[in-house]
Amino acid sequence: MPKPGPLSLNTVTVKERWGLAECIEGCARHGIPGISPWRDVLQAMGVAKAARRIREAGLMVTGLCRGGMFPAADAAGRRRAIDDNRRAIAEAAELGSACLVMVCGGLPPGSKDLPGARAMVRDGLHEILGEARAAGVTLALEPLHPMTCADRSVLSSLAQALDLCDDLGAGTGVALDVYHVWWDPDLDRQVARAQGRIAAFHACDWLVPTTDTVFDRGMMGDGCIDIPRIRAMAEAAGYTGFIEVEILSKRWWREDPDEVLDLMKRRHATAC
Amino acid sequence: MPKPGPLSLNTVTVKERWGLAECIEGCARHGIPGISPWRDVLQAMGVAKAARRIREAGLMVTGLCRGGMFPAADAAGRRRAIDDNRRAIAEAAELGSACLVMVCGGLPPGSKDLPGARAMVRDGLHEILGEARAAGVTLALEPLHPMTCADRSVLSSLAQALDLCDDLGAGTGVALDVYHVWWDPDLDRQVARAQGRIAAFHACDWLVPTTDTVFDRGMMGDGCIDIPRIRAMAEAAGYTGFIEVEILSKRWWREDPDEVLDLMKRRHATAC
Repeated sequence: MPKPGPLSLNTVTVKERWGLAECIEGCARHGIPGISPWRDVLQAMGVAKAARRIREAGLMVTGLCRGGMFPAADAAGRRRAIDDNRRAIAEAAELGSACLVMVCGGLPPGSKDLPGARAMVRDGLHEILGEARAAGVTLALEPLHPMTCADRSVLSSLAQALDLCDDLGAGTGVALDVYHVWWDPDLDRQVARAQGRIAAFHACDWLVPTTDTVFDRGMMGDGCIDIPRIRAMAEAAGYTGFIEVEILSKRWWREDPDEVLDLMKRRHATAC
Repeated sequence: MPKPGPLSLNTVTVKERWGLAECIEGCARHGIPGISPWRDVLQAMGVAKAARRIREAGLMVTGLCRGGMFPAADAAGRRRAIDDNRRAIAEAAELGSACLVMVCGGLPPGSKDLPGARAMVRDGLHEILGEARAAGVTLALEPLHPMTCADRSVLSSLAQALDLCDDLGAGTGVALDVYHVWWDPDLDRQVARAQGRIAAFHACDWLVPTTDTVFDRGMMGDGCIDIPRIRAMAEAAGYTGFIEVEILSKRWWREDPDEVLDLMKRRHATAC
């Protein structure tokens, strides 16, 4: 099996200890060629300055996290979400990011209308698509694990994401995160269907047991996901890009980020 | 919309405070016409005695929980699982249960071989099918929420369960638990496909936030699942049976079971 694609650091992996400046310096120091910032650390530095420093450090921006969060209880809330997505597209363009990762949003608070929330996601994506295309920013629809359906993402499977891509057309793709899709009985078929549309590949691991539905992701190799198997599917579907490490974990956030990056590099070589 | 089918108490809902005797008496006292025992409380009473007392109380047995748990690290472990399933089939038959609910099992400890574990489930089901048919016990394949894939059930979607039913043939069906399937973007289509094969309908609710991947299920009406919508799908697919309440919850286990049953009845009328 070929070696995994180059490594990228998603900044949320070290978010408690490092801002964007430290992440950029850390990637350069550790020889990690890619970075994927979250918008909070990006805005804290300022987009123009961040774009310059990332470029000067010789790093690729493998994604900007995140757009989406479309569903809202009323039209004003949905409008605010659209406006925020427009800003996110502009930031991704200024950053030269490979894509804008779309975490599409859960049910509006108190709502049980799942088909309605899914329609809000589809409508929101249609509304921002023109601007994304004009800016040259690929919207990377990220199906999230079904356990996040209520409060984070009503986009719950790769099949559903690809159906949306079929509907939306050019300028869209998928972000394939092993954590969110590893359980899917239909994964082989859907990844093959994603041929040419995989805009990002995210890695971490599923711990046994998992003690939190959001903040207990594992370091690659510490859990039960056969990451090389999923990577092979993605490569068979034409993906040749980065392996972006995105670990939301109360446990890893406590550690020295330099040690986390060292371990990431080892596990990138041995467990991806 | 028609009223929901009659109510059934899954004994795990009150497992910290009531054994099977109290559950049988409680159902009779509260006018709950169905019961679904777990095998631990059933065996504690003895199957023959339980069958007699349930019959004398005038209750229907809507399911026996549970068979399954097929994957194991070695052949001896898989053999033990098959043997245990044979005993479960005999117990379900003696009890006159409508079905044996199959929780198929997760990955063997330390394994990352998900296709392998799924093959063990298929092989195990094939091995016990003849006995189930001979005993007149329907094997109700229960897809569990994908968050349980590692340690409880590699059967993760209704589509996957129905594919297995197609493969196995007569004597199999599905247990449809709203908690496990509510997020599924393909749910409408798959429930329609389940026409004539829905052996059980389980109800509880998804809490927002959910603080435990196993023991934080909600009382119907306390969460975000549109239970009537899913029930309507099941009824359109020909289901006319019980609404079985199965709530694994550290919170509800602390409460007075008589109060839990009272609330179940109210929510059965208002939230199902």
